[in-house]
Amino acid sequence: MLGALLAAAALGSKAAQAQSDPLASWNDGAAKQSIVSFVARVTTQGGPDFVPQDQRIAVFDNDGTLWIEQPMYVQLAFILDRVRVLAPQNPAWKTKQPYKAVLDGDMKALAASGEKGLVELMAVTHAGMTSDEFSRIVTDWLATARHPKFNKPYTELVYQPMLEVLAYLRANSFKTFIVSGGGIEFMRPWSERIYGIPPEQVVGSSIKTRFEMRDGRPVLMRLAQINFIDDKTGKPVGINQHIGRRPIAAFGNSDGDLEMLQWTTMSGSGPRFGLIVHHTDAEREYAYDRQSHVGKLDKALDAAAVNKWTVADMKKDWKRVFAFQS
Amino acid sequence: MLGALLAAAALGSKAAQAQSDPLASWNDGAAKQSIVSFVARVTTQGGPDFVPQDQRIAVFDNDGTLWIEQPMYVQLAFILDRVRVLAPQNPAWKTKQPYKAVLDGDMKALAASGEKGLVELMAVTHAGMTSDEFSRIVTDWLATARHPKFNKPYTELVYQPMLEVLAYLRANSFKTFIVSGGGIEFMRPWSERIYGIPPEQVVGSSIKTRFEMRDGRPVLMRLAQINFIDDKTGKPVGINQHIGRRPIAAFGNSDGDLEMLQWTTMSGSGPRFGLIVHHTDAEREYAYDRQSHVGKLDKALDAAAVNKWTVADMKKDWKRVFAFQS
Repeated sequence: MLGALLAAAALGSKAAQAQSDPLASWNDGAAKQSIVSFVARVTTQGGPDFVPQDQRIAVFDNDGTLWIEQPMYVQLAFILDRVRVLAPQNPAWKTKQPYKAVLDGDMKALAASGEKGLVELMAVTHAGMTSDEFSRIVTDWLATARHPKFNKPYTELVYQPMLEVLAYLRANSFKTFIVSGGGIEFMRPWSERIYGIPPEQVVGSSIKTRFEMRDGRPVLMRLAQINFIDDKTGKPVGINQHIGRRPIAAFGNSDGDLEMLQWTTMSGSGPRFGLIVHHTDAEREYAYDRQSHVGKLDKALDAAAVNKWTVADMKKDWKRVFAFQS
Repeated sequence: MLGALLAAAALGSKAAQAQSDPLASWNDGAAKQSIVSFVARVTTQGGPDFVPQDQRIAVFDNDGTLWIEQPMYVQLAFILDRVRVLAPQNPAWKTKQPYKAVLDGDMKALAASGEKGLVELMAVTHAGMTSDEFSRIVTDWLATARHPKFNKPYTELVYQPMLEVLAYLRANSFKTFIVSGGGIEFMRPWSERIYGIPPEQVVGSSIKTRFEMRDGRPVLMRLAQINFIDDKTGKPVGINQHIGRRPIAAFGNSDGDLEMLQWTTMSGSGPRFGLIVHHTDAEREYAYDRQSHVGKLDKALDAAAVNKWTVADMKKDWKRVFAFQS
């Protein structure tokens, strides 16, 4: 009787422990251990690596680091869908590139239209409305759009192990920021709900806006002009512009994150942490790195070895990729 | 005996009350009352005007709203001092405008050099170094520079009543931001220490920066190119870019803040608050408004009446302007 009770208590305690593991979707291993030990070091009061709370800044790339980016960036899927929605009001698009390529589903012709074509598509889908209107368009689209492989809303295709890292860092008084090459106004309508990251902690690429009074009410009109590209060398620039101090931890997955990881880990004093999500799981998600046209990971993978950044192997280190996977 | 004790207790309680007044440097009156009642409305759970904590965003202009801006913007005093410091390494400046005007203390000739002259002075004093180096230059300068009228460090010439508003709002779960026409990197080195506002909550004007590896370490070089002017119609643009949602309270003092006040109070739903600091106290600080070359307050003063923004009359509404005034 007593033995049974003790055994039950032990089981209960083990279950409680498992439940209370803040990184429950991570397999035990070097990657998980590196996160836990970094957090322990910077939060140990009186320890040699203690970092005051206000300096615990962590930055996260979005596409491929927090949510899915294959078979195409989610924002590109949005652009293509918007062109289809707007096509009836623009009959000339049927015979005009790059619109025709989108309407025909001809990705080869679309690719051939190059950066010029993409900028034109950006302009008609991202500009010419107010900031509030764009926010609603994004919100409405996300409510109905589905990923072609998983047939799920994109906002469910966020990486459960990374959500746990975000929550774990915040529970340890980190301030978490997104620093993404994606559009800042494309992320803000849902970043707080999905990631717990408020709009003011989202850094991204942007187009210019103009203040106007419209029917006696102030609006910001979105203009078809690039303001800032928050990618590669732009990431440290964006971090400095928005955050104004160096992060002590950075999380990315591609060469677009190389300079952000360098900026975070190779300058300043005190402990620093860098992590790269390596997409190695063709079954539960996708497998790609050095040769990929989306989320190419080549130079940053080499740099990880040199700089002792953690490389999280999706297949090996993650118990599940998405919350809906058991 | 009992009477004396009761009187002492009453006095003690009155003193405690006075001490616990979060806006102790404000005289009782409509301005103070408007702040207190706005905060009560938005924080009353279940009330019709309740605002969730994450939406309690308040924005503050800096020059003339949080600290002194006469007889010239502090940043201009910094520029002039830096030109004097750098002059020995630049002998040609002795005979070349606008440098000669600065070195001769000839403010008339300096004014005659116009915007072109000022941009040139900005370039030599604000660019050509790393972001870390510039931060140190600003910090070192503030430690020694003194205001010509008060002979005090500029960081002591911050308005005590406004420091109390900042603290009062934060105690009521507001997030406080600076939104200033001044340089973002000129404010960040000291905004947390002086105002309790961390670097990531400072929005301002900026020049461009470029990421570089220097001796194997990443740096951001400051370039002599304007990136963004955070003034007038630029303020709502800057707010949207950095904060990504509408503030519910805005504090300014000049026409440069008009659009920020409009953006905050004239759009969106729910309670909104606007306040203008009116410089009416020639004795304890300065008196200026519609005709001033610095901090001109004309259109925004007219708009305050129309839009029911609070106008804080420095002389009438403030018990003291600076902490060192009794």
